[in-house]
Amino acid sequence: MPSLASSLAKESVRLAVGLDVGGTKLAAGLVAADGSILYRTRRDTPGEPEALLAAIVDVVGEVEDRHLVGGLPVGVGIAAIVDGKGVARYAPNLPLVDRPILDELQRDLDRTAVTVDNDANVAVWGEYRVGAGAGAATSLLMLTIGTGIGGGLVLNGRLVRGAHGFAGELGHIIVQEGGPKCACGNRGCLEALASGTAIGRVAREALATGTVPPSSMLHQFGEVTGKAVTVAAHAGDQCAVELLARCGFWLGVGLASLVNALDPEIIVVGGGAMQAGQLLLEPALAAMTERLAGAGHRPVPPAVRAQLGNDAGLVGAALLALDQLGDESGNP
Amino acid sequence: MPSLASSLAKESVRLAVGLDVGGTKLAAGLVAADGSILYRTRRDTPGEPEALLAAIVDVVGEVEDRHLVGGLPVGVGIAAIVDGKGVARYAPNLPLVDRPILDELQRDLDRTAVTVDNDANVAVWGEYRVGAGAGAATSLLMLTIGTGIGGGLVLNGRLVRGAHGFAGELGHIIVQEGGPKCACGNRGCLEALASGTAIGRVAREALATGTVPPSSMLHQFGEVTGKAVTVAAHAGDQCAVELLARCGFWLGVGLASLVNALDPEIIVVGGGAMQAGQLLLEPALAAMTERLAGAGHRPVPPAVRAQLGNDAGLVGAALLALDQLGDESGNP
Repeated sequence: MPSLASSLAKESVRLAVGLDVGGTKLAAGLVAADGSILYRTRRDTPGEPEALLAAIVDVVGEVEDRHLVGGLPVGVGIAAIVDGKGVARYAPNLPLVDRPILDELQRDLDRTAVTVDNDANVAVWGEYRVGAGAGAATSLLMLTIGTGIGGGLVLNGRLVRGAHGFAGELGHIIVQEGGPKCACGNRGCLEALASGTAIGRVAREALATGTVPPSSMLHQFGEVTGKAVTVAAHAGDQCAVELLARCGFWLGVGLASLVNALDPEIIVVGGGAMQAGQLLLEPALAAMTERLAGAGHRPVPPAVRAQLGNDAGLVGAALLALDQLGDESGNP
Repeated sequence: MPSLASSLAKESVRLAVGLDVGGTKLAAGLVAADGSILYRTRRDTPGEPEALLAAIVDVVGEVEDRHLVGGLPVGVGIAAIVDGKGVARYAPNLPLVDRPILDELQRDLDRTAVTVDNDANVAVWGEYRVGAGAGAATSLLMLTIGTGIGGGLVLNGRLVRGAHGFAGELGHIIVQEGGPKCACGNRGCLEALASGTAIGRVAREALATGTVPPSSMLHQFGEVTGKAVTVAAHAGDQCAVELLARCGFWLGVGLASLVNALDPEIIVVGGGAMQAGQLLLEPALAAMTERLAGAGHRPVPPAVRAQLGNDAGLVGAALLALDQLGDESGNP
């Protein structure tokens, strides 16, 4: 039951509890409708499904108790494929298979105002509503470039979840059929050519084949990772700059496909690889712009850096819960 | 002004006038809400903008007069990039540049119930509402494979037009960076590898390089087009079957990218190249299925043939006009 304090709080500032449930950590917070985080907490993600559900219920209680509120909308972003009925269908890093997590949480939290969605999707929603895409009216394409490449889409003002919750696997569009092996098992995926992992791999390949000049800083690293390449490039190492540009080129090829298909208003790029910043984005935009259908007759969407960092999921989950109550965009 | 007959007609059967304005022909018809065409007419597309607008107004009058109705919703699908305000931004084959065609037609037709959209988009809407995708609840991906490859998307129950009207250029997703030259000027687009034109080209290349066995029917055609390859394949020519399978493979690679990004409920394939039928679709589905993210954990969307043929634009335009009046899905 909502307490008096909760009712008062809802009158003045609309609040929700947001959760970002990853494979190892579970982050939760009290989030206002403008995206500000009023309280945050974290715990380890339990390895058993029952314990995971109990932890979610418990952390919601902690967040609400701290602010003497109750019965708030709860938005959960979780590292799982979640279908339109809130069933977690598949989760590589969580103990959830065909688990009706929305129904279970509504029951255990004693409220209907609960949403459950894929963690990448809620992060996209956060950037769209109060982050890098806050100026976009109806559409946004987001890539998160780290070890892999994740993604998400807002089109016509709504998250694109797909018919079965599998939409947004933008790292697995194919940009070079038969190209390098991807973690997903296929070849030539965008992720295999432009992720942080790919940056490290092309650098190690260049070192192994002797195409890195002796003067390059890249010889000085014990293990040449994507991060090492970025550090070297920022220090002015020309070979490292060129390696980033090569990966940026493939990023641009992938973006061209996505922009030709979807014509988004804005492209948001986040993740660890964005430490490379313009060294990755500039060659990407150049390659993309060259490959757009109707070039010269169309605006080229800007590519901007994500703003919410690791909070995107937490904030986006809470805002999605508020929005799904019909207060904002009426999504979905 | 709506006539009495019109008011009566709207009470009993909801009707709209649909137009499909191509570079050479303009088709119009009276369409019922179930997609049936009660009357149809055709004329040449005038080459001047003023004459084009006048022809649209005139043909709407003809359609309405024949059925003693007036003031019906009018849906126009046109071979142009149309932005969210109904301005035709760009049209390779029509005399329209930055022309506020929606405003002009609302004025000249003396009614507000007018919609103007890209011709490929309205065709997709037709297939979604009453064609091959009529069973799909909220999403559909369509490819039209002919001389080129056109496309369109319905996601979350709405047409995806993009931020500037450029969405749906699915023929220009890149499946083989650096591959064969595309009509758009780029290389390795899906269209360059899997269109009817591409089928003809790979066959001629095979003939030129002597890789077509002497027994093949392909030697018997004066000009080896995509259609010739299809005819030979249906007659059992193994080389032609293999050429279709090679183009079907690339179609599948492109579909894999699109399905990984968008997870549509159904894939609809139309256009002249679909005379090849399963000889093209089967290898496409095999290549696509192999490349889906989360394979084994997700349904594979079925690929089915478009049902409305050349009427898709006319019917879809009319239904979009009806739907945009809020009677159906409320799109957009």
